[in-house]
Amino acid sequence: MSQTHDISQTGSWMRDLSGETRWLSINTATTREQWTLAQAIDGIARAGIPGIAPWRDQLEAMGVRQAAQAIRANGLTVTGLCRGGMFTSFDRGGLAQALDDNRRAVDEAAAISAQCLVLVVGGLAPGSRDIAAARAIVRDAIAALLPHARAAGMPLAIEPLHPMYAADRACINTLAQANDLCDALGPGVGVAVDVYHVWWDPGLEREIARAGAAGRILAYHLCDWLVPTRDLLLDRGMMGDGVIDLPRIRGWVEAAGYAGFCEVEIFSKDTWWRRPGDEVLATCIERYRRVC
Amino acid sequence: MSQTHDISQTGSWMRDLSGETRWLSINTATTREQWTLAQAIDGIARAGIPGIAPWRDQLEAMGVRQAAQAIRANGLTVTGLCRGGMFTSFDRGGLAQALDDNRRAVDEAAAISAQCLVLVVGGLAPGSRDIAAARAIVRDAIAALLPHARAAGMPLAIEPLHPMYAADRACINTLAQANDLCDALGPGVGVAVDVYHVWWDPGLEREIARAGAAGRILAYHLCDWLVPTRDLLLDRGMMGDGVIDLPRIRGWVEAAGYAGFCEVEIFSKDTWWRRPGDEVLATCIERYRRVC
Repeated sequence: MSQTHDISQTGSWMRDLSGETRWLSINTATTREQWTLAQAIDGIARAGIPGIAPWRDQLEAMGVRQAAQAIRANGLTVTGLCRGGMFTSFDRGGLAQALDDNRRAVDEAAAISAQCLVLVVGGLAPGSRDIAAARAIVRDAIAALLPHARAAGMPLAIEPLHPMYAADRACINTLAQANDLCDALGPGVGVAVDVYHVWWDPGLEREIARAGAAGRILAYHLCDWLVPTRDLLLDRGMMGDGVIDLPRIRGWVEAAGYAGFCEVEIFSKDTWWRRPGDEVLATCIERYRRVC
Repeated sequence: MSQTHDISQTGSWMRDLSGETRWLSINTATTREQWTLAQAIDGIARAGIPGIAPWRDQLEAMGVRQAAQAIRANGLTVTGLCRGGMFTSFDRGGLAQALDDNRRAVDEAAAISAQCLVLVVGGLAPGSRDIAAARAIVRDAIAALLPHARAAGMPLAIEPLHPMYAADRACINTLAQANDLCDALGPGVGVAVDVYHVWWDPGLEREIARAGAAGRILAYHLCDWLVPTRDLLLDRGMMGDGVIDLPRIRGWVEAAGYAGFCEVEIFSKDTWWRRPGDEVLATCIERYRRVC
């Protein structure tokens, strides 16, 4: 039963999450230190959560076919596969090898019927200080990947990452950049909006509306920004424990036409990775219903 | 003897720093664990560096009058006083007390003949998740501070801080935001461009040109972004040790008309704060001449 209620900050009508879990998805990074993918599939299904987003290393460890079967058997929706990309910061083999690997990622995403392949595009090229050049490489690489993705029917979701990852993970750092890239690349590519990466952006409301108008919001990721944040990578917070105005951003996303899953993705070495997986998921459900 | 040479990346003519230190300034945060302000004044003068930018806590510890006298006696130019601001994230006493404190900061900056008072504007208000509200408070607070600053002849330099500080230090996170704020506030306010905070911004060249066209680049701060960065606050790099394309950004700043000091400001608890102050300054000089 879908309901909406008025969120006074935005004045727009939003889905009411308080009584259900129907749009909740768990990115398996959230329990990656506790659970294998097989355990995560079981645990997520056991918790009554309908969505999952696995990572490729876990998928390969389990076997793509076995994972696809277990996901299907449990009736889970795959809200995304993490991750393709890393077009610039590959270790060796150059761009051609990165593209080969990304084509395999597209195939794996298709094999598990993922709604999109999430792209973390890569930072500066090794030894380079030229971020404009990195951005050009990324544009050209996604263009080169697109024919394969289109043929596979697999949407590519460019995920702008927080500017603190510009050097080593992703040189696409704002939703405006991701939107510009989508405009340039044409059909088959969209964006993943992760509140952790974009919450600070003064242009966020405008760029969410722009992405929504183009029908390109492919995924919506949740966690929270802790104060203080003790680690650049592995100190994300559970929703409600930080300072991100989650209802406001979801209001913008839904006002822009997004009606898909809310995918929880928390890297938390000192807190959530140390607790039992079932407890983590129970907390995700409680917070999803109450503060998101 | 001022010289210029062509920087191929930008095609514009830049000052040649290789043979001198005439535009070098040291922000005393760079040696704050080794030296008191009195020691820093001596050390900077001893190294033949013409500029200094002190912090208020050090200034108050030394005594404003004594510091002003020592700075003058050593012929140093004060490229900025750090810092005013913190309009939203005050501990107690509210905005009125924050404004009183900022007026004192203006007076202290005037007492040491600083070229500007640097504003780190503050993050979210205590208990708040509303960054738009924080930004509105900041705008109104600077407007309220401006009459006193104008009367004192003290330019206010809004320093956009990296988005990773949006929650707890500054909700002005891009040069575009700072430029917009300056447009709204009128004369007496400008910007401090610190490469650490803005290097990742895809709009940087445009916004530097915009700031320069308005004659509002009041300070230019240098350090470097390390990969990996191990601490959000205290792991800045010495110029040349990280990934920022320093000559390119300086080329943009100088093409925009800036002809002032290059102020080195490095918070580095594990590296530069552990070395003798004289060695740190010698390294600053060498890097300023070779990689900035």
